[in-house]
Amino acid sequence: MISWSNFRPVGNEEEYLIDALSSGWVSGGSYVSKLHEALESVFTESKAYAVSNGTSALQLAFQTLGAKIDDEVIVPSFCFQAATNVALQLGLRPIFCDVDRNTWNQSVETIERAVTTNTKGIVVVHNYGVAAPVKAICDWAHARDLWVIEDCAEAWFSKHEGLYVGQYGDIATFSMHATKTIACGEGGVVLVNKESLVERASLLRSHGIARTDKHHYHVVPGNNYRLSNLLCAVAFAQFEKRAEILKKQIDNSALFAEILGDHWAIDCQKGLGEIGEDSIWATAVRIKFDKLSVSRDVLIEMLAACDIEVRPGFYSVSTLPYVAAETISDANIADSLAENIVVLPTNPSVSENQVREICHELIRLIEANRKNG
Amino acid sequence: MISWSNFRPVGNEEEYLIDALSSGWVSGGSYVSKLHEALESVFTESKAYAVSNGTSALQLAFQTLGAKIDDEVIVPSFCFQAATNVALQLGLRPIFCDVDRNTWNQSVETIERAVTTNTKGIVVVHNYGVAAPVKAICDWAHARDLWVIEDCAEAWFSKHEGLYVGQYGDIATFSMHATKTIACGEGGVVLVNKESLVERASLLRSHGIARTDKHHYHVVPGNNYRLSNLLCAVAFAQFEKRAEILKKQIDNSALFAEILGDHWAIDCQKGLGEIGEDSIWATAVRIKFDKLSVSRDVLIEMLAACDIEVRPGFYSVSTLPYVAAETISDANIADSLAENIVVLPTNPSVSENQVREICHELIRLIEANRKNG
Repeated sequence: MISWSNFRPVGNEEEYLIDALSSGWVSGGSYVSKLHEALESVFTESKAYAVSNGTSALQLAFQTLGAKIDDEVIVPSFCFQAATNVALQLGLRPIFCDVDRNTWNQSVETIERAVTTNTKGIVVVHNYGVAAPVKAICDWAHARDLWVIEDCAEAWFSKHEGLYVGQYGDIATFSMHATKTIACGEGGVVLVNKESLVERASLLRSHGIARTDKHHYHVVPGNNYRLSNLLCAVAFAQFEKRAEILKKQIDNSALFAEILGDHWAIDCQKGLGEIGEDSIWATAVRIKFDKLSVSRDVLIEMLAACDIEVRPGFYSVSTLPYVAAETISDANIADSLAENIVVLPTNPSVSENQVREICHELIRLIEANRKNG
Repeated sequence: MISWSNFRPVGNEEEYLIDALSSGWVSGGSYVSKLHEALESVFTESKAYAVSNGTSALQLAFQTLGAKIDDEVIVPSFCFQAATNVALQLGLRPIFCDVDRNTWNQSVETIERAVTTNTKGIVVVHNYGVAAPVKAICDWAHARDLWVIEDCAEAWFSKHEGLYVGQYGDIATFSMHATKTIACGEGGVVLVNKESLVERASLLRSHGIARTDKHHYHVVPGNNYRLSNLLCAVAFAQFEKRAEILKKQIDNSALFAEILGDHWAIDCQKGLGEIGEDSIWATAVRIKFDKLSVSRDVLIEMLAACDIEVRPGFYSVSTLPYVAAETISDANIADSLAENIVVLPTNPSVSENQVREICHELIRLIEANRKNG
């Protein structure tokens, strides 16, 4: 089976893990600091914090930015809806904007249509690793006194206009779930890019307690978003090998684009820059199912029968049972994308030959199931 | 130094951790199931879930119970205020009730004084491992259609009226922080004791997605409260050795009670049952500082100079800067306790001789600093 996701130790994961365990420092500890320093050596203007996971990273981001009950937050109609869910849990009001037909990400234009006088900020999601135009979005937002959170869960080390994604927003969040580019099981990262937010983020991450000060004294009502020293040890080992992991991931996605890019029944997700600037975490393609005699679910089953694990795209927000219709500014493109996307195994353990095999089987099945006429 | 807390592997932590890492299953995995099954073999009527930590356990508990913005929740004026902080983050309204002068925990009487027509539930905290009268509190609450969350972070395996604490509330939460009885670094447990809440808890724990169903389809706006298979491996190894861990902890706290119990300047926290029923996580004693010429901070420094790490008690809610005075129903005993408690190293790595040494130094310093007259 060519697995959609396949976590494997790539460096010193085991050594660091045992070192952390035997040190007795399993909550805080030296690997937490090492991971923070390693992150800050790459994201040079940011303050980095390891957190429980990519979703708790978003919760910490909202709270650090002071989002309050009934504040409107613009989120994409097409993405993994972690930010929406956390926003709803905190009593915020997510307003959904459409995505661009080429990048499948938000744009200034789609955001502009969703903004109201109650908008307080924007969550920009870099779907599948393709950078959204976050520089333009931040310029637009900051001119209007809106904050920006970048959700980079799927976009570790994607480049945009000379920086990494995650370096533009007021705060950026990352995931280190087993399926992600940098993985430790359950984990996340928050980058704070605004000096004035650093202390608040740090407090909220750990019960609102200023550790240098009085034991157990809560300065603000914080939560616990800390990541265990054990998991930081694994993440740090992965981070050390990021060049190797990234190369495989980028090679795989570039080869997918090369083979599938011109096929009559396939649209690839388009990046804003040169090929290779986006560090595509998962290659998503839109299939013209209207030209085929099989549904997406059936195609996915057929690929599984060829030992290839393929996943469907995200559901558009219009289909989620708890989303009020009046909060959807626009989901036209999201709706059309959501039903037609399949996501191909792109992870570093997929070999070049396997990429070729996936493309071969995908094209073969598409051709075999082309509608007559 | 006799450390207040001292995480050490006690069984197969390393073996299980390496097994989990090399399996490639670092998010979900077999140790998650093993831990759940082990928990359910002890808490026989509960459905158990490993979660990110004891605070996220409380967040999941509130959400599972359907707590909504402006709902009033009764919490103790004296405790580690994790539940209060999460409640505030979710827009709930914590109302603070006092604690009993002997148990330092809530009672039906203190709760009764805090209840209003807007009260929706009660968080019962078993401070330091001493069981609160949770059976009576649940009877009282359920007769009034109020839910009960038991915060058992500090009270793993304490017994009360024939059951463990955590078996009474609609939902119970536990912590597996490095300092706790069962520890894995950062981790927590939720016990769901009401069949009708199980599915909702399970959904909310993992993005509101029913895994057996459609990929990425959110049924409810869930969060990510999952605990990595790696940390579940450590927790499971600790859980296997719980009898050993508990014996040491109980022996230590019983010896503290025996030596310090009758001292003129010391009040011990009182349990409701026989000595040994409470699995005291940390021995807390109230010192009559009004009879001494030294402050608590100075006494703690003097003990540190004897290589004994002692911690202050919790701050009373009256001193927290973000708590509105009108939400404090009563904190009289909490206030008097908070300033006079010191908490002694009770963890399983503290030997019998060290308990005797701690008592000896504490009594020596009290006598040496007795006020004249």
